[in-house]
Amino acid sequence: MSETKTDDVGGWFSPEDFAVVRRRMPILYVDAIPVLVDADGVIQRIALLLRTPREGGISRALVSGRVMYHERIRDALSRHLDKDLGPMALPRLPVSLTPFTVAEYFPTPGITPYHDPRQHAVSLAYVIPVDGDCQPQQDALDIAWFTPEEVIEPEVQQEMVDGHGALVRTALACTGQLV
Amino acid sequence: MSETKTDDVGGWFSPEDFAVVRRRMPILYVDAIPVLVDADGVIQRIALLLRTPREGGISRALVSGRVMYHERIRDALSRHLDKDLGPMALPRLPVSLTPFTVAEYFPTPGITPYHDPRQHAVSLAYVIPVDGDCQPQQDALDIAWFTPEEVIEPEVQQEMVDGHGALVRTALACTGQLV
Amino acid sequence: MSETKTDDVGGWFSPEDFAVVRRRMPILYVDAIPVLVDADGVIQRIALLLRTPREGGISRALVSGRVMYHERIRDALSRHLDKDLGPMALPRLPVSLTPFTVAEYFPTPGITPYHDPRQHAVSLAYVIPVDGDCQPQQDALDIAWFTPEEVIEPEVQQEMVDGHGALVRTALACTGQLV
Amino acid sequence: MSETKTDDVGGWFSPEDFAVVRRRMPILYVDAIPVLVDADGVIQRIALLLRTPREGGISRALVSGRVMYHERIRDALSRHLDKDLGPMALPRLPVSLTPFTVAEYFPTPGITPYHDPRQHAVSLAYVIPVDGDCQPQQDALDIAWFTPEEVIEPEVQQEMVDGHGALVRTALACTGQLV
Repeated sequence: MSETKTDDVGGWFSPEDFAVVRRRMPILYVDAIPVLVDADGVIQRIALLLRTPREGGISRALVSGRVMYHERIRDALSRHLDKDLGPMALPRLPVSLTPFTVAEYFPTPGITPYHDPRQHAVSLAYVIPVDGDCQPQQDALDIAWFTPEEVIEPEVQQEMVDGHGALVRTALACTGQLV
Repeated sequence: MSETKTDDVGGWFSPEDFAVVRRRMPILYVDAIPVLVDADGVIQRIALLLRTPREGGISRALVSGRVMYHERIRDALSRHLDKDLGPMALPRLPVSLTPFTVAEYFPTPGITPYHDPRQHAVSLAYVIPVDGDCQPQQDALDIAWFTPEEVIEPEVQQEMVDGHGALVRTALACTGQLV
Repeated sequence: MSETKTDDVGGWFSPEDFAVVRRRMPILYVDAIPVLVDADGVIQRIALLLRTPREGGISRALVSGRVMYHERIRDALSRHLDKDLGPMALPRLPVSLTPFTVAEYFPTPGITPYHDPRQHAVSLAYVIPVDGDCQPQQDALDIAWFTPEEVIEPEVQQEMVDGHGALVRTALACTGQLV
Repeated sequence: MSETKTDDVGGWFSPEDFAVVRRRMPILYVDAIPVLVDADGVIQRIALLLRTPREGGISRALVSGRVMYHERIRDALSRHLDKDLGPMALPRLPVSLTPFTVAEYFPTPGITPYHDPRQHAVSLAYVIPVDGDCQPQQDALDIAWFTPEEVIEPEVQQEMVDGHGALVRTALACTGQLV
């Protein structure tokens, strides 16, 4: 998913060097689930990014990306939310950085629900209410908003990449909003 | 502290008085999901209590019960685990009392996944590894052990009372073991 | 739902009856720590309510109150925040109802850091960012805002009631903002 | 999986290469706080490793180490606990991998309470009850057991490295055992 993201690795490693590093070390990520909440804090909608991968079809994804050297987790979250939802999204960063789950993405499928063929990534996952206006950026065609009921439907789950379907279901359960 | 407490509500309220109280105040409960874990802490089996209610059929339930006056939550958990799993179960009480979820059981169905026709109960829910031997007590016919895959099957979920099916699925998700 | 509820216990129990109940059952509470956060979600200020108790001196307290019969925890939080901070406080209720700690207030001092001479209360505690304007209500003289450094100073801690000083320190630690 | 891994970075990077990597990427760690608990799950003692650094004096530390490529967090925890406490420690790995805190160690002091002059490390921190016998390994002179009251005393806190004093205090608060 992030292959089309420029985390601007060149500032830190050449693409060749980073290709070596990501086959030898776990890479730290953050995953963010953008949500609309009502006045009581209850999740009303979940945002999924729509993309058309080179290999065809469509895929849906959450906001996801690397933590950079000397970057606070809060800054990484903020940067990736801005990058994927645009500057008017007004995300509400959490008071506590304890993630609702730690998603371990292995290059080998089946060890966990999470899979990333490019690397071993370990991601801290957060539910992030957004107050503003989200606009698709860069490589995303659209941002679609699903109710909790819709997002767990098999058709939607199947379009989600890398285990993001399981991540959304985990988020709903951990926030007590399992449907 | 709990040694001087009993679950005999008559010791505190007459059954008539308690019937009034539970229609006027939320009642504090603990729910415990007894599990077997492997050496890595991964859930292998989940214990469900099998009962035959008066109205016929069978029902499956987790360990659940009230917190008494002046009883610590740890003592309430310990008391209910002993009462339902027997004195040889060797439950491992959690180091932190932060529950994985707060289950709100309303007498009105549909407000949350949890429902209790007798009362408004608010339950702190914990996953409790057990090291010893569990034996059905009192009103339970059996204690059956299910794998995470089995416990979420529709047949098993349908036999579970009061939203305990949703509670088990929430527990699996919150421990990162969603299947 | 909560609009039809009042905290007037007489609506549910006479004061005499409630005096009996609270000596026989644990009473379910919510505690809210109102905070100002910056754009990154980091706590900048913590609000304490200032009161002058009959026995003299001053006392500082968090927002705290009972959960009523058939009231959702979200509605109880919302009601008590409104009652103590006024209608313009614009509190942000949490997406997840998992509390940062469960505070057990015993009538007997010393069992936990929390103490309530009137009753055995079990309180679900939350950190609540507020976006609006807080105004002291009813019995409060003032709402004072402290930095995390100030709120843990011995002089401030000593003015806090019932273990609320320990609750604030626990909140700062659990949100990773221990000072 | 972890049995075939070693913490010998040379197996993955030469020391020179790793020196470059750790100045360009955040490195994923786990921190474990070994504790003795009573039958109710309450922390009785906390284990600190005693070392004599080259620069003189003594230092006390928690169990801490890197997560290796393709290693599960559970396996990394298990490996570091074995390495520092010996094979008879019998640690109880947690059912949930949600850490009690995420400790961000920056090479620049003062950004967080955590500091590591060698690198930017992000550590998932867990409280780990141990049932067996802990023996100092490798570079540790001793394993000393402190009560919660003792471990927060200024003399002990001062001997702790890299912010581990703050990490222990955070652990006590997050488990509701703030003293």
